[in-house]
Amino acid sequence: MSALSRASGVSVATLKYYRRAGLLPPGTTTARNQAEYSDRHLRRIRLVRALQELGGLRIEAIREVVGAIDDEQCSLHEVLGVAQQAISSVGPAKCPELAEVDDLLRQLGWGVSPGAPARHELARALGILRDLGSDVTVDVFLPYAHAVEPLAEQEVGGVPADGATDEAVEYLVVGTVVYGAALAALRRLAHEHHSAQRYRRRAEPS
Amino acid sequence: MSALSRASGVSVATLKYYRRAGLLPPGTTTARNQAEYSDRHLRRIRLVRALQELGGLRIEAIREVVGAIDDEQCSLHEVLGVAQQAISSVGPAKCPELAEVDDLLRQLGWGVSPGAPARHELARALGILRDLGSDVTVDVFLPYAHAVEPLAEQEVGGVPADGATDEAVEYLVVGTVVYGAALAALRRLAHEHHSAQRYRRRAEPS
Repeated sequence: MSALSRASGVSVATLKYYRRAGLLPPGTTTARNQAEYSDRHLRRIRLVRALQELGGLRIEAIREVVGAIDDEQCSLHEVLGVAQQAISSVGPAKCPELAEVDDLLRQLGWGVSPGAPARHELARALGILRDLGSDVTVDVFLPYAHAVEPLAEQEVGGVPADGATDEAVEYLVVGTVVYGAALAALRRLAHEHHSAQRYRRRAEPS
Repeated sequence: MSALSRASGVSVATLKYYRRAGLLPPGTTTARNQAEYSDRHLRRIRLVRALQELGGLRIEAIREVVGAIDDEQCSLHEVLGVAQQAISSVGPAKCPELAEVDDLLRQLGWGVSPGAPARHELARALGILRDLGSDVTVDVFLPYAHAVEPLAEQEVGGVPADGATDEAVEYLVVGTVVYGAALAALRRLAHEHHSAQRYRRRAEPS
């Protein structure tokens, strides 16, 4: 296990915690107090860390994702669904804007399950904009949808459908989290760039 | 305060907590045990809730953002900087990929301060992709940068430079959080759509 710690850059104490929490499968016992770990363990550690650090997931949520990956009855689509559910922060709530979000999804031609938590997040975002006094319709999100669609398609398409091994599934799950974090970071950098050009000084109220 | 609670949909207990935490300015005292609250208070409550719920910010971070908004010496660019810093999760760390991120930013022509936490997030994302065995360069993020730039420009440009009152500043701060949440939600919906088309069943390893 100390070799695994060196290879992964994660402390032995943390690795033991991952083992106890059921996030890391046992190694192959080779001698008393000795176990052998494989590349699969190393990949799993990286998955857990990425979900934790960039996805902000709690241990219980990571356990669900890992469980879905290890369950061979679970289709890749279902694994991604479990990961989505885990990443999502907003619980389902009755939201008057939900019907408008569904209109938008129909307009886009996106087939999305009724239980998708992201529908609620989008409805909540629309509700908040209106609370703030903004007179917007759901179409305000159309340019956002068009911007992310080709990116999402490419991310999801990263795994050839005929070779979806566990390794590929893990990569895809981490990839969606990592590229999501990258997208958010780039958006903030673009904000800073444009804000610097416009608003270095707060103007006097006119 | 009970009228303010009804208008905002936030409980009186929570409003008292906001007051104590310094997130909500005092009302104008009109009689013993009576204070009058204005639209400004209502807007402030919505700001706090949006930062908390959609931005995932802690109270201390919200206090910093609110403080920057209330500080008239603080330019709009600086207020947005404080908000960015508060939203960011990844602290600065020595990351070998940082130089590559800076190359990317130069290539994009984005003027970004050396202390921007999003630089570190992006470097971390690149590092994780490589840890996962992906043979990528920083250019993998170019399509992401191009996708978000026009959106960010429009968001930042939402406030006319000659009329940046406190109300506008608040709207802009909330807007960046809300549109960020909407972008993330739409990306997940697009994932689900494309994943359903491709991966309803996990293929047999070939």
